[in-house]
Amino acid sequence: MSEPDVLLLRQKIHGLSVDEYADAMREWLPDADIAVGRTPEEERELIEGARVVAGFNIDPEMLDRAENLELFACSYAGTGHLPMKALEEAGVAVTNASGVHGPNISEYVIGALISLARNFPRAARQQEERVWQSFGSQELYGSTITVVGMGAIGQAVVDRLEPFGVDTIGVRYTPEKGGPTDEVLGFDEIHDALRRSDSVVLACPLTDATRNLLDDEAFKTMSADANLVNIARGGIVDTDALVRALRGNAIGAAFLDVTDPEPLPADHPLWGFDNVRITPHNAGHSPVYFERLADIVAGNYEALEEGGEIENRVA
Amino acid sequence: MSEPDVLLLRQKIHGLSVDEYADAMREWLPDADIAVGRTPEEERELIEGARVVAGFNIDPEMLDRAENLELFACSYAGTGHLPMKALEEAGVAVTNASGVHGPNISEYVIGALISLARNFPRAARQQEERVWQSFGSQELYGSTITVVGMGAIGQAVVDRLEPFGVDTIGVRYTPEKGGPTDEVLGFDEIHDALRRSDSVVLACPLTDATRNLLDDEAFKTMSADANLVNIARGGIVDTDALVRALRGNAIGAAFLDVTDPEPLPADHPLWGFDNVRITPHNAGHSPVYFERLADIVAGNYEALEEGGEIENRVA
Repeated sequence: MSEPDVLLLRQKIHGLSVDEYADAMREWLPDADIAVGRTPEEERELIEGARVVAGFNIDPEMLDRAENLELFACSYAGTGHLPMKALEEAGVAVTNASGVHGPNISEYVIGALISLARNFPRAARQQEERVWQSFGSQELYGSTITVVGMGAIGQAVVDRLEPFGVDTIGVRYTPEKGGPTDEVLGFDEIHDALRRSDSVVLACPLTDATRNLLDDEAFKTMSADANLVNIARGGIVDTDALVRALRGNAIGAAFLDVTDPEPLPADHPLWGFDNVRITPHNAGHSPVYFERLADIVAGNYEALEEGGEIENRVA
Repeated sequence: MSEPDVLLLRQKIHGLSVDEYADAMREWLPDADIAVGRTPEEERELIEGARVVAGFNIDPEMLDRAENLELFACSYAGTGHLPMKALEEAGVAVTNASGVHGPNISEYVIGALISLARNFPRAARQQEERVWQSFGSQELYGSTITVVGMGAIGQAVVDRLEPFGVDTIGVRYTPEKGGPTDEVLGFDEIHDALRRSDSVVLACPLTDATRNLLDDEAFKTMSADANLVNIARGGIVDTDALVRALRGNAIGAAFLDVTDPEPLPADHPLWGFDNVRITPHNAGHSPVYFERLADIVAGNYEALEEGGEIENRVA
């Protein structure tokens, strides 16, 4: 077995093979030895000499074997599942995939906002029945859109809304930092944002502060026509409260890439609403996911080699 | 009967009542007498003194009665159905509703492009079956989008695509005029645009030059993954050729607001394709259609009063 510079652990994402990751890494780093662990055994052997390891997770036993490891490059944007203490003790830097999702998730959000405004779900039902009948719609133009979360995804959403002639409100932990939206409010002011919003986009991490952020009270404040798009985490919405709001015709419509629970059980009422569209947590899919990730990780490998700054570092 | 300054003929559009038109006109022109003809008889009486008449059409008999008429403000963007010769002989200026559709139709187009790229129709089918299963998607980012037609709608589409990181090709009669796209080609070069396009948007008028613009040859040139959005007129696509292309898996998917024939008969094969979404020619719907129209027509009434320039004039 060789001692690779970079080891890619077994990983597939959204139907993409790890080979696409390896190909992209080799294109960026033609002089580096990029290895792929194909089996648990291969992973255990190859990790011994690797300087950089990339994957969804690394277990403590593997970490013990990784004597040369300087950087673990997590293939997810979120790193809450990693053994951070053990990584720190081993002196291993950790990076995430933040930014990889900007284009795909923000496109999803704009598509979801317009699908709800123009009632494309109704078009789908009419098509099923082969019925040609005009129906009304809303317009984004002139409407107010609240984006909760001003990270890479929230920013990418607001960037794409720019030419649509909408008023935007951003909600974030630290409103004093400002943001790309017309207004920026703190989480303690969310009802002020909700009451003025025609659409609400959830793009924040799931934390103690955001769990059940949209509860019965929030749905009471929201306009009866307001649409909800959630591409963050299912737990940011109190699902039972959402179901109550939908049953009571208390909000306009919802486009959900994430739900709580997930996967959504077949007998869950959310599936059945005419004004709800559900996608199976695949807004993060990008046909070029591994290419974008390789861009970051290859850059960080070079930074290790040449003493530059490591991008997307979380620890 | 009064002699109104402006007469609104009976008209409803996309479920909106003519009263919304009258309300908006009265807001713009508080000192003018804005009348609505509620019956054929009322229309005939009121038209005698009206200086401006607004509606979908005016028949020659009505025109004869309109002794004070200076401007006929057509409520459609297209004016090919009007008795243009009689209007000219009567010395009546004609305006259209061009520009009214910019926001709503361009939003529809962006929503359609993303719906196809992210395969929202598949999400709809899975939701029907209550199946949670991830699936892949395309991305607009980095793709090439051709917009056929550089009028108000084509322009509005290209404006909204700006932050999506796409390459745009415009196709128009007069490429020497340039346009908002990265490249501008003439209709004689359309195959060059089609072969490089990931998405094709039809936003041109139906003329002898554009009828059956997308025919068997065009679908042969298009990439097998390329998506089609048609918000122009059904006749710009050779429907039989489109059905052949879809049956042969020769293009990616299609999102059609217009079809040929229209309405699409219940037994038409287009309804049944998984990768086709059909809406009932309602991309033109805007909840503020009459408000936008009133903005133009009220401005033109003022131009008549004060000797300014008439906007949207077609004759």
